[in-house]
Amino acid sequence: MSEMHAIQHRNFGDPAEVLEVVSLPVPQPGPGEVRVKLLAATINPSDYGMIGGSYGRLRELPAVAGREGVGQVDALGPGVSSVGVGARVRFPEGGAWQEYACLSASDLVLVDATVPVEQAAISFINPPTAYCLLTKMIDLKPGDWVLQNAGNSAVGLSVIQMAKAMGLKTISQVRREELVETLKSMGADQVVLEGSGWPKQIKELTGGDPVRLALNSIGGESASDQIKALGENGTQVTFGGMVGDKVRFPTRFLIFNNVRLVGFWWDKFCKTQPAEAVNEVRDAVHRMMREEQLKLPIAATYKLSEIKDAIRHDKNPRLGKVLLKP
Amino acid sequence: MSEMHAIQHRNFGDPAEVLEVVSLPVPQPGPGEVRVKLLAATINPSDYGMIGGSYGRLRELPAVAGREGVGQVDALGPGVSSVGVGARVRFPEGGAWQEYACLSASDLVLVDATVPVEQAAISFINPPTAYCLLTKMIDLKPGDWVLQNAGNSAVGLSVIQMAKAMGLKTISQVRREELVETLKSMGADQVVLEGSGWPKQIKELTGGDPVRLALNSIGGESASDQIKALGENGTQVTFGGMVGDKVRFPTRFLIFNNVRLVGFWWDKFCKTQPAEAVNEVRDAVHRMMREEQLKLPIAATYKLSEIKDAIRHDKNPRLGKVLLKP
Repeated sequence: MSEMHAIQHRNFGDPAEVLEVVSLPVPQPGPGEVRVKLLAATINPSDYGMIGGSYGRLRELPAVAGREGVGQVDALGPGVSSVGVGARVRFPEGGAWQEYACLSASDLVLVDATVPVEQAAISFINPPTAYCLLTKMIDLKPGDWVLQNAGNSAVGLSVIQMAKAMGLKTISQVRREELVETLKSMGADQVVLEGSGWPKQIKELTGGDPVRLALNSIGGESASDQIKALGENGTQVTFGGMVGDKVRFPTRFLIFNNVRLVGFWWDKFCKTQPAEAVNEVRDAVHRMMREEQLKLPIAATYKLSEIKDAIRHDKNPRLGKVLLKP
Repeated sequence: MSEMHAIQHRNFGDPAEVLEVVSLPVPQPGPGEVRVKLLAATINPSDYGMIGGSYGRLRELPAVAGREGVGQVDALGPGVSSVGVGARVRFPEGGAWQEYACLSASDLVLVDATVPVEQAAISFINPPTAYCLLTKMIDLKPGDWVLQNAGNSAVGLSVIQMAKAMGLKTISQVRREELVETLKSMGADQVVLEGSGWPKQIKELTGGDPVRLALNSIGGESASDQIKALGENGTQVTFGGMVGDKVRFPTRFLIFNNVRLVGFWWDKFCKTQPAEAVNEVRDAVHRMMREEQLKLPIAATYKLSEIKDAIRHDKNPRLGKVLLKP
């Protein structure tokens, strides 16, 4: 075991063109470090932004792609006693699409082994984003209505399930008719079709209650519809995840209805908030996964070496995450 | 003196078509009321919205047009002792384009007679809006940069002069080259031409400091440019006044730069804030006018009966307010 697979890119660009499966030496943990073996990694919308060069923070090239995965400690460097071989941990973030990586033992993020491995793999970006959107932007009370587009995305499905657990009500915008019943079976209160003129029916959808929060990861018409549907003093949050279309809206909603438009970026939250705040979010996500209040579907699993097939699958209509395993 | 001139409209529509000069009986103050005689009224951008039917609140028809003016108490109804004939007051807001109007003595807004009459006429909508934009939206410190479009509007000129008095720095966007020097002579720190690609030079304009607040009453490209020029965590406020074009912006600024977009509407502030808060704003404006920190130019003065000429003048390029006098 001296060589391992890694998915690398030497340039920013279309993943189908710039990604290559390469063999790299298996890294050896130095003093104070541990080596982590990958159990499962995810493909996230933001991976495309990071590989493509449009994301808010980029890696130095050549870079191993991928941001999110779960692994287990596989070897300890000299002087490490705080953790043992076999411990379940977050796979190092700076390149999750490879079989092994080393990091300082003090930077480890431990994951409770009672969280299913495939759920744990998905637990570090989308569900924490959903949790923050529902708890950190405005003060929501049980019974309040939350609107979101991309209702079938991993953030969208997390919002539906978390909102249910919190006593909030959701309206999810989707592009495909067949998703309506699927999302309802997962706990969605209302599901509407994009482009159907649904904002005109907003009062019937909510029984006359105002929509207080709208979550946008798409932009364009989908986001404009949200602005029209928001109640007085409503908030629209645009968040990282998809590289969205431009938002276009008549200013009268801001002026006369006091709607406000803000952003949220989980990466920035992690960078600017105290560690306890970040841990609190992560713990809440893992608790919900353990208690099966949150269970995200897996669309398919591919080997690292099948990355191009995996990305093709990911870009087609699907429900659930595409996972990568060694 | 039994008949007076008033500018009325029976339908919502283009002011050039729907406004009529009519003769109405001079009203007599009832018990507890006073009659106010108009000294000077203004034409505001929001008058066009109210006459046209697009504004956030509309009057019952037929309606006397106009929202803002200053007058003096001219007759007292039975039982009024709290105010005397001759007192300078705000002209009743529900139809300022008429020679006389009555209102309850308890609703009077007194205006210090040391404020010049023409400045007082302009003091109830645009300068309070400017004052709130600079003091109520975010916590600005001396030396902070504020960006605004429509720099030559009454709000824009108020922002320039108030910012100067508060130690803030301003960048004003204008459409006409000849306004650059005019605005600088009134205290503007930087003046840029719309459509010139100025956001690329933002660091040179501010000496590298971030722009913390952008004030938008135009929308469209002008507002998108502001979003690009705002620093991290910056706020754009869209406010009542002009009926703006749609705003179109790439969502990355909200996500990665944490820019937020909010609205402000002086009418709503007056309706939702305690009377002391509204009075504090009005007092601050009148103090600045009295001390000549704030002095708004008058473009022209017309008689009420010349309303169509006045509106024509108002709609052409100009600097300063068009006033109406009896």
